[in-house]
Amino acid sequence: MEREHISAAYDAELSDLRQRLLTMGGLVEVMIADAIRALVDRDTPLAEQVIAQDHQVNGQEVAIDEKCLELLALRQPAARDLRFITLALKIVTDLERIGDQCANLAKRVRELNTEPPLKPYIDIPRMAQRASMMVKESLDAFVRGDDQLAVKVCQDDQLVDDLNEQIQRELYTYMLGEPAAISRAVKLTYISKSLERIADHATNIAEMVIFMVKGKDIRHTIA
Amino acid sequence: MEREHISAAYDAELSDLRQRLLTMGGLVEVMIADAIRALVDRDTPLAEQVIAQDHQVNGQEVAIDEKCLELLALRQPAARDLRFITLALKIVTDLERIGDQCANLAKRVRELNTEPPLKPYIDIPRMAQRASMMVKESLDAFVRGDDQLAVKVCQDDQLVDDLNEQIQRELYTYMLGEPAAISRAVKLTYISKSLERIADHATNIAEMVIFMVKGKDIRHTIA
Repeated sequence: MEREHISAAYDAELSDLRQRLLTMGGLVEVMIADAIRALVDRDTPLAEQVIAQDHQVNGQEVAIDEKCLELLALRQPAARDLRFITLALKIVTDLERIGDQCANLAKRVRELNTEPPLKPYIDIPRMAQRASMMVKESLDAFVRGDDQLAVKVCQDDQLVDDLNEQIQRELYTYMLGEPAAISRAVKLTYISKSLERIADHATNIAEMVIFMVKGKDIRHTIA
Repeated sequence: MEREHISAAYDAELSDLRQRLLTMGGLVEVMIADAIRALVDRDTPLAEQVIAQDHQVNGQEVAIDEKCLELLALRQPAARDLRFITLALKIVTDLERIGDQCANLAKRVRELNTEPPLKPYIDIPRMAQRASMMVKESLDAFVRGDDQLAVKVCQDDQLVDDLNEQIQRELYTYMLGEPAAISRAVKLTYISKSLERIADHATNIAEMVIFMVKGKDIRHTIA
């Protein structure tokens, strides 16, 4: 009876950890969407809000780290749970850095919003949407232990890389044609790069999930 | 006697973990230096070597991860050791990504070496040297538990950020003055950005070390 009690409390703690990661993931997904909406709608207060939210993400990281250490120290988990908790420790770092990227991106948006728009944005919002979906799916794959979904995330990374390359090429063309556009075009290349890095973080998470599920390290083997 | 025996074996394992991290750090330091030497000396085979070494870094990451999981599972460490091992798990991810940055950087160098040089490189090698020193010092701070050294690394990050900004500004000027230079200048901005990201990884490591030593989270509080 006592043992069942302990086990139920332990399960509740693991489930709490899962929930915290999903909450943190949900926050960064909103930040990605808002940062891009701030660009498209030229909404500087919204960009400011994203910049401010980065602190919230940082606070969540610290709390999740502490929770993981506590679980490792008090519960001395083995096998599957040990792998889950140590992965949570790594994943939370990726989520925090996605938050950093959103804040960087929003800072560029704030600068761009003080100048006339360079062009209508089509591919950047598309890229943001895909990167955000990858973040969501990588975390879903983690909490469900779904390696198939994780493989999909790794594959989607190529699409984001391709979009980034295409956007970079297009922006060079602008720079070549119109020197006055260079400063804005360079800022847009940074925004595109930030989105690519967000997708990279999601891919890192997904690769670790495949490792967790398969017990086999496919990191660095997916082309 | 038996307990002492176990304890000695455990200490040896922790010391082995420390050594592996330093070895991995030493490898990425060499990669940073070689990637930049490949740029300055227009030495494409050296750039190829850096790209190839990334696999070695990846292998070291996987081995260190496994070592950490083994220590957590079999030794059930508490307090200080627990913190050390969980930080090792996080730090190894930063080192692996520094390796990725070196490979990216070397790929840009390979491209740049097929075109006439844009300018003599002064600030980029200086920035690389500083970033490499930060990587070395952040790891030294970790294995020695030296929070003062870690604070220095965090402060040095500003110098690298400033150098990056200065290089970016200078390259814009090139782009404005000579459209034929844009493609090369953009590649150089990526190289500068990669070095800045390497310094960021070192700073992340240093912040975590301060957390380990002080037991207080200063991440996200240093301006």
